[in-house]
Amino acid sequence: MKALLIIAHGSRRHQSNDEVTNIAKQIRTCEEHDFDIVESAFLELAETLIPTGIERCIKSGAKEIIVVPYFLNSGTHVTKDIPEIISAQKSLYPDINITLTRHLGASPVMLDLILQTASDTVIN
Amino acid sequence: MKALLIIAHGSRRHQSNDEVTNIAKQIRTCEEHDFDIVESAFLELAETLIPTGIERCIKSGAKEIIVVPYFLNSGTHVTKDIPEIISAQKSLYPDINITLTRHLGASPVMLDLILQTASDTVIN
Repeated sequence: MKALLIIAHGSRRHQSNDEVTNIAKQIRTCEEHDFDIVESAFLELAETLIPTGIERCIKSGAKEIIVVPYFLNSGTHVTKDIPEIISAQKSLYPDINITLTRHLGASPVMLDLILQTASDTVIN
Repeated sequence: MKALLIIAHGSRRHQSNDEVTNIAKQIRTCEEHDFDIVESAFLELAETLIPTGIERCIKSGAKEIIVVPYFLNSGTHVTKDIPEIISAQKSLYPDINITLTRHLGASPVMLDLILQTASDTVIN
């Protein structure tokens, strides 16, 4: 089974965390992907933390976990903190294939997202 | 003339600010939109600040400015700080059509961006 784990920074503001959890829920219910499991987790300040998110995916039967950092910029969290946590998780679960992707801000689709957001509002 | 102004939070880390500036540059050079002017600006901590970004668009000839918040979550910056700044700018330039869009994280395209990022890395 294959899992998608979306990692956000985490906020003291519950609503911000709920937005991330809701994105995971929306992806879970849409059918345009081949993930059997979709979870979200946070680097800090909010539950679920990353190790618990990984554990949850594995308990749900995941043999492969794709971890996507929900971050716009390549700061220390993206370049150092998250890779270190994921590396430790890989050592902990050597039989599980855990892959860390680039952060969202590095995607070429980001340009489309900005233009789409700009044009949506002009229409409305 | 029509301008796109991308607004990010701003960071003490130059590289993070440069990433935003580079996104504006990439959009400027791509041809899949009808913006004559593409600029970026920051809420705080970095130059150019939002009022200067607006002024720059107007000096370049913009009569319409679409302002897109480059933010993932709907915190106070998105719900209060940025709308207040944009409102003040609208009062300052009543002849310019300034529109503030929703923030990137609120876009339904965000789901595609996450799935695209996940699948890219699996292929690589």
